This record gives sequence, structure tokens and C-alpha cells, in this order.
Amino acid sequence: MSRPFTHALRVRYGECDPQGVVFNANFFMYFDVALTELWREALGSYTDMTASGTDMVVAEARARYLAPAVFDDELEIEVLVTHLGTTSMLTRMSVRRGATEVVAGEMRHVFVDVEHGTKTAIPEDIRRGLERHLAPKVEVGA
Amino acid sequence: MSRPFTHALRVRYGECDPQGVVFNANFFMYFDVALTELWREALGSYTDMTASGTDMVVAEARARYLAPAVFDDELEIEVLVTHLGTTSMLTRMSVRRGATEVVAGEMRHVFVDVEHGTKTAIPEDIRRGLERHLAPKVEVGA
Amino acid sequence: MSRPFTHALRVRYGECDPQGVVFNANFFMYFDVALTELWREALGSYTDMTASGTDMVVAEARARYLAPAVFDDELEIEVLVTHLGTTSMLTRMSVRRGATEVVAGEMRHVFVDVEHGTKTAIPEDIRRGLERHLAPKVEVGA
Amino acid sequence: MSRPFTHALRVRYGECDPQGVVFNANFFMYFDVALTELWREALGSYTDMTASGTDMVVAEARARYLAPAVFDDELEIEVLVTHLGTTSMLTRMSVRRGATEVVAGEMRHVFVDVEHGTKTAIPEDIRRGLERHLAPKVEVGA
Repeated sequence: MSRPFTHALRVRYGECDPQGVVFNANFFMYFDVALTELWREALGSYTDMTASGTDMVVAEARARYLAPAVFDDELEIEVLVTHLGTTSMLTRMSVRRGATEVVAGEMRHVFVDVEHGTKTAIPEDIRRGLERHLAPKVEVGA
Repeated sequence: MSRPFTHALRVRYGECDPQGVVFNANFFMYFDVALTELWREALGSYTDMTASGTDMVVAEARARYLAPAVFDDELEIEVLVTHLGTTSMLTRMSVRRGATEVVAGEMRHVFVDVEHGTKTAIPEDIRRGLERHLAPKVEVGA
Repeated sequence: MSRPFTHALRVRYGECDPQGVVFNANFFMYFDVALTELWREALGSYTDMTASGTDMVVAEARARYLAPAVFDDELEIEVLVTHLGTTSMLTRMSVRRGATEVVAGEMRHVFVDVEHGTKTAIPEDIRRGLERHLAPKVEVGA
Repeated sequence: MSRPFTHALRVRYGECDPQGVVFNANFFMYFDVALTELWREALGSYTDMTASGTDMVVAEARARYLAPAVFDDELEIEVLVTHLGTTSMLTRMSVRRGATEVVAGEMRHVFVDVEHGTKTAIPEDIRRGLERHLAPKVEVGA
């Protein structure tokens, strides 16, 4: 059973730029924060994973900016795991303020061995935890 | 005549994370810095444009992370304008350390009227300045 | 009756540097976040004040770093208003992780008129709200 | 012979806040950048020092905000070493835009052994390099 994970955060003053809106790069930092919280909920703290020898690196990140967010806005960030490969994970992020979608994002992470820095298979316990947030496949022609 | 524009910057300590590498979101901030410098070279300072009533907002941003960059690295960011529409601009960024491509990025900006916040046509003088950095079209079957 | 105000936040990955600890400058951003939350609790949202024509600027900031804070730490930031002058406010911040004081800080803000950017007296309603967080004077020789 | 060290940098868009000025915390990041550049000039790269087993941690930081700095300003940061103790260093920073002093700062760093994280004496070669930027003592009654 897939469940969307949502993390709420409030926009900080220093994250906004002279246009009065969240500076574009900061949404990628928000994605990272939301993913850390998904980790905590699904798997225990992120540092437990790195302590056991596995880490993740970002391979790709993308955002579409749909509406501005301003200082003091309370945003909800929904994270869906859209694909779990052998060594990589795709996620989709949706940043919302109430009913308004502010930013739609996607990230690709690759799991690495902390010691050697090389790609490594997703550990089984982590795979099982993440599968609970895996988006259901869209059935075609069913 | 198209010319690639390049801006050099040095990685700051506070831009790096506990993995010892530039935190992924910060490359989007580097893209913004490089674009500001392209503006200066092609068009005079960015604030001249906003003072005359036109600004840009980011509509889309994307990065592929190809190699890590660490504290004190001197990076070169090449910016190519790949498309100038009526109200929007596409750019392609390549962040390099020597011969190594560190990050490949793309951005889409939309020009807006400062007063009303609505889409506006790219002003003619800005279009002419940006055209000097327009990537040559790939001729197909020529 | 003075009450200490406390705001809790969790250390984000991108706020930590290659030493694995929160980059020193980011504690001043934490101070700002805590002050925004004190505002909300004591006075309603910060943007209400600016909308009514008054803003604050930072005149002085100071931090003593007593212990490191690392990624994923949950920190508590206590804010005490230590002085309310005619146009300025002194605050004292204490960032703690459990019983450990991580950073001790002080800030001085000056109230300004939004329209003219000049110093202005602290509005009466704001003064009354802030007085609830005013640290008790130390009685000498009493 | 003491010489003031100066590093120039340009204010980035994402470093400015909705007031249109450099967000107060970012000046501490500028101090760090200027110190890295003083290191390079006086001692070779900062990473050479950490590679040889010595690092620095910030013990105290302070800034007085004297005038605003805005996007695209070119700032000069002067760094003076004001004291070299057995294990600690005091520096004074002055951020200027032309003849205007924007921020005056002070920092205290402590040298630490990378392996054990404990205080360590300033290595002799580093002391000699830093002494070239030591502010002259004010002679009293001479």
C-alpha cells in the first residue's frame, strides 16, 4: 500500500530574495529536508544508514516553478518514491501552499558505499521501508 | 556570431556539506551568479533592466551531477542561450573544473513586467545582447 | 511576568559544512528564525508589522560557539528580550541541544519606518507584546 | 611589517533578502571567504593546513551593521590579524563599498588537532605567515 509522505515547513526570511519570494535554489534544499524526514518516518534517522556504510548522492534534480512562495508561508512538501532501481531511486516532490502547487520537482539519487564511494545496491531493509512510499504504477488499458 | 560566456568562481567552505562536496542546491545558486555575469557582459548590469521595468523569474531549472566539486575548487561556468522565445529564454549551463564537467544544467526564465508581475515580451535591446550568446542551431541533414 | 520563549528546529544537511557541524554563519540565520517565531507568539505575524509601516534592521549580532551541533540535531533556541529602548531592542539567544548550550548569542535591532527607512519609536502594541518576554532586571544589593 | 589584506567580492542575488539588502547572517559567510583568501595569500591553500593535521574552529563572531549592501555591490573585505595567542587567533574584518564601511566584524578562531579535535598550538610556519598581517600594536606614550 503506497502512502504519500508530507512534510510541512515554514519559509524563512533569509531564504527569500529581493523579489520577496523564495530564491529558486532553496527549493532544492527543501526537497532535501523533506527527503530526510521521509527517511526518519520510513527507516529511522538518515545517519543510521550512513553509519552502517551506505549513503546517497544526488544524480539529477529538477524543478518547475508554478507559483511564488513568500516569507512566512507554511508549505507542505509531498514526496513520492516513483522508482526503485538496483542502485538508484527516483522521487517526485510537490510543494504546496494550501490548494496551490508552488513547485513540482523530481530527483534521482544513487546509493553509494561510504568507504569506497562506489555505487552499491539499495540495502534490503531500506528498500522495504521505501516501498511503502512507492507511487502505484499507472495501469494502462486495464 | 555566437560566443560561449564563461564565469569563474571558487567554491566556498559554507557551500559544502558533510560529504565534503558542494551541496546540490548550491549549483542552482551558481547558475544564477553566472547568468548575472553574462548579463553584465552582454547588457550592462542586471539592475539596469529591473530599473527600466522588466525582470525575469525562473520557470524551470534542472541539473545533472556528473562529478563532485569540493571546497576551494575553482570552477568555470559556461552559459549558452539556447532559445529566445517571445517572453522566455532557455539557457544551458556547464560547470567545469579543468577538463572535468561537474554539473550540466538547464534553466528556463520568463520575462515579467515589474509593475504588474505579468509576462512581457523580451525588450529589443536585451534580445540583441542575448543573441550574441545564442548557441548555433544544429543543422540537420545539411 | 517575563517568560522565556523557545523555538525548536532541526539541523538541515545543507546547513552543515565539511567539518560535519553547522556552519558558523547559519546560527545567525537560526537567531532570525527564532525571533520570527517569538514575534508570532507575542505579536502575530511579522508581516503584520511591516504591513503597518514598521520594520526592524539588525544593528549588531554576536555569537559565542560553545559546542558543535551536527546534522539532524534537534536544537532549542531560547530568546530573551534584554532591553527595549526608544527605537531599539536587545535580545539574548541561547541555542541548546538537551542540557548542552551550543551557542550563546546577542542581537541589537533598530526599528525603522518602512517608507523612509529612518529610525522610528517602537510602536506601543509591539512594545507591550515584547515586554512579556523581557528578562527580569537583576536586582543589585537587594 | 604588517599589511592589511583585502579581498573583493560581489554581492549575489540569493544572498539578499526581501528588504533588498544582504541578509545579516551572510556577512559571517563573507568573513569566512575573506579569511580563506588571506590564508591562500599568506600560507598557501587552507586545505594544505588541514591535510597536515591542523584545523581551526570559530569560537566567537561579531558584526556591527553600519550601512546596507545590496545586490551586485562590489565589496572589499579587509582582514587584520589583531592577536595571535598560543592556540587562538583574533581577526578584525571591515567590509567596505568604496569609502563607506558597511560592516565591522571580529572573529576568534581556535586551532585544533584534526585527529583528536582538541586545542593545539598554532604551527610555527602558520604563525610566521599570519604575523605578516598582524595589526601593529598601538604604542602608548612612545
